[in-house]
Amino acid sequence: MSPALSPAARNLAGPGTPFAVVDVHRMRRNIARLRARADRLGVALRPHVKTAKSLDAAALLHDGRPGPVTVSTLAEAEAFADAGYRDLTYAVGIAPHKLPRVIALLRRGVTLRILLDSTEQAMFVAAAAREAGIAVPAQIEIDCDGHRGGLRPEAPGLPGIGRILHDAGCLDGVLTHAGESYFRYTAEERREAARNERDAAVAAAGRLRAAGLPVTTVSVGSTPTAHAADDLTGVTELRAGTYVFFDLVMAGLGVCGPADLALSVVVTVIGHRPEHGWIVTDGGWMAMSRDRGTAVQPQDQGYGLVADLTGTVIPGLVMTGASQEHGTLTARDGAALPELPIGTRLRVLPNHACATAAQHHGYHVVDGAHGDAAPAPAIEAYWPRVSGW
Amino acid sequence: MSPALSPAARNLAGPGTPFAVVDVHRMRRNIARLRARADRLGVALRPHVKTAKSLDAAALLHDGRPGPVTVSTLAEAEAFADAGYRDLTYAVGIAPHKLPRVIALLRRGVTLRILLDSTEQAMFVAAAAREAGIAVPAQIEIDCDGHRGGLRPEAPGLPGIGRILHDAGCLDGVLTHAGESYFRYTAEERREAARNERDAAVAAAGRLRAAGLPVTTVSVGSTPTAHAADDLTGVTELRAGTYVFFDLVMAGLGVCGPADLALSVVVTVIGHRPEHGWIVTDGGWMAMSRDRGTAVQPQDQGYGLVADLTGTVIPGLVMTGASQEHGTLTARDGAALPELPIGTRLRVLPNHACATAAQHHGYHVVDGAHGDAAPAPAIEAYWPRVSGW
Repeated sequence: MSPALSPAARNLAGPGTPFAVVDVHRMRRNIARLRARADRLGVALRPHVKTAKSLDAAALLHDGRPGPVTVSTLAEAEAFADAGYRDLTYAVGIAPHKLPRVIALLRRGVTLRILLDSTEQAMFVAAAAREAGIAVPAQIEIDCDGHRGGLRPEAPGLPGIGRILHDAGCLDGVLTHAGESYFRYTAEERREAARNERDAAVAAAGRLRAAGLPVTTVSVGSTPTAHAADDLTGVTELRAGTYVFFDLVMAGLGVCGPADLALSVVVTVIGHRPEHGWIVTDGGWMAMSRDRGTAVQPQDQGYGLVADLTGTVIPGLVMTGASQEHGTLTARDGAALPELPIGTRLRVLPNHACATAAQHHGYHVVDGAHGDAAPAPAIEAYWPRVSGW
Repeated sequence: MSPALSPAARNLAGPGTPFAVVDVHRMRRNIARLRARADRLGVALRPHVKTAKSLDAAALLHDGRPGPVTVSTLAEAEAFADAGYRDLTYAVGIAPHKLPRVIALLRRGVTLRILLDSTEQAMFVAAAAREAGIAVPAQIEIDCDGHRGGLRPEAPGLPGIGRILHDAGCLDGVLTHAGESYFRYTAEERREAARNERDAAVAAAGRLRAAGLPVTTVSVGSTPTAHAADDLTGVTELRAGTYVFFDLVMAGLGVCGPADLALSVVVTVIGHRPEHGWIVTDGGWMAMSRDRGTAVQPQDQGYGLVADLTGTVIPGLVMTGASQEHGTLTARDGAALPELPIGTRLRVLPNHACATAAQHHGYHVVDGAHGDAAPAPAIEAYWPRVSGW
């Protein structure tokens, strides 16, 4: 699970397959790119750690310091708190039974902001805060594009929710997420989605302030809009998650290129079915996830593009089928099926980094900047993942 | 991860959501049903433990004895060997680098059969067996329906592969899997698929025997064909996995009914979007998996059907959307969206039990035979899962 690196496992030809690999060189580049953008835009960056779910990966986000992060589970919040992080946002609508764990973290001195979008939630949060004698910082979720949860910025109930929170000392601000930006295929459409995301958050904050309610945080973000925003006036912080690894969905949108993908899964060829044009591997959906995010994109990438062990994409080779522990590779666009004998190791680049990473206990880490990779890229570290809820 | 059951968590209203639940009453019924069928058909049953991946669940398969099982990973093989199982089949084509772990298990006295479908594999298995001075029992994978791997029973190379294995003391038999039976929607079509599966395995065994090669095991199986087979003459054992839990894909085929589904995921309502007709929960694809197996069936069940906390399906309510930690429920067929306040717990029945179970560290176990469930079904055990490779 968290293997000590035996000598035999010190490069990608070593460990039993399938296993997940992170190219830390690509990851550092992806992190630097968005940090530079946030600096130019004049907003704080609060990366979402739900993608990597790794303290070692998170250490690269803020130059080794435990800076602000977003989490998707209380298990992540607790793991990051244990590691010294003190500035967290739990960006999933709160349920009553989760408040004791939230309050326990607050009592440890962790600023853990929670999210809600209803009067009902504001009332039980306010009641729990009063009962515990502690402020429970809460953000009101704003719906900018009809994607999922949240209140529209013009919703009649918004100031009332703000008032309930404020009166209990719990109002922190507003948060929105442009989930529909994952379906915007041009840079201009994504820029427009980023403006719309900003406008929704800023409008909601303005309505609260107009009602005499102080708003500290105005939080926006998604990987596509974070890389497209041109003006975030009125916004205090930017969130994004997938960008640390990127994936084929993001490459399909044009937010990154395939050479930016930092996560892959090493698999081994275990069979050939030339009569069907198939190469069979030991990496099925258990290793890749069932995510087929590129199926709705102009170029469907199956379960993933296939690279050699150094990370170089093999043109035209796609993982088109998956059962639990079997992957099927086929050639497309008239490409010849390459000669890949049984035992050949390959790296499969995933549709959706969050989903593929979640199939693994951790990552073997290589550094693509270290040049030639004979016989295979060296494994420089193992990064365990946080899991569960 | 493997929580001790605190008093507050002793029924399904207790643990933090989302979490996986197994109804052991339904599971026992499902197990008894297939065992009775195998007995009537006069074949041994070798359940595939890749679905539950749990030693506690497996204890119900053979009345508490460590009987024959099929595994999908060497991690399962090792965990079951550690628990006293001595009769295992690893039903994924072998790669050279996995042989040391196989041989280590054989040396511990575990009969671990491996699978292959090429001359190349037979040669490296024979060489490894000779070098280790140990028989490595191997089965030749037979392709009965073009689903995945294997040799066609009439393949010219079949006897040659058998010969290489036999000469190294490694030939155990043949194995086939009717993967296409997951797309056969009538009992008669599945009966036909079961006959075809049997015929392919028996024909392959016959060709090997005709070449003077002894065949011990003739193994067939898939959950749909195992429940449809009417005559398994010539077959020595039947494999199936999903049947212990069943799922919506199997219900959609008619192999079981929704009331047979033993696995579900408890989620909590965290929001409402009445303008879209949505109820939002804290169970997204991280809890359910991305599996959309029913999407190709006549009745698409989204990410799952929704039941109340006692396991009774709520008519017309379907989980139609999933992001990482959010599920969206909608009403279909003109059903009214039920009143489900924030904090309400629900049980979501999955498309594909293997994929949903894999998203969890283990199962909270309830017994649906224990009648009334106020305030919620009691949790009687926690069963951890084996994971990784």
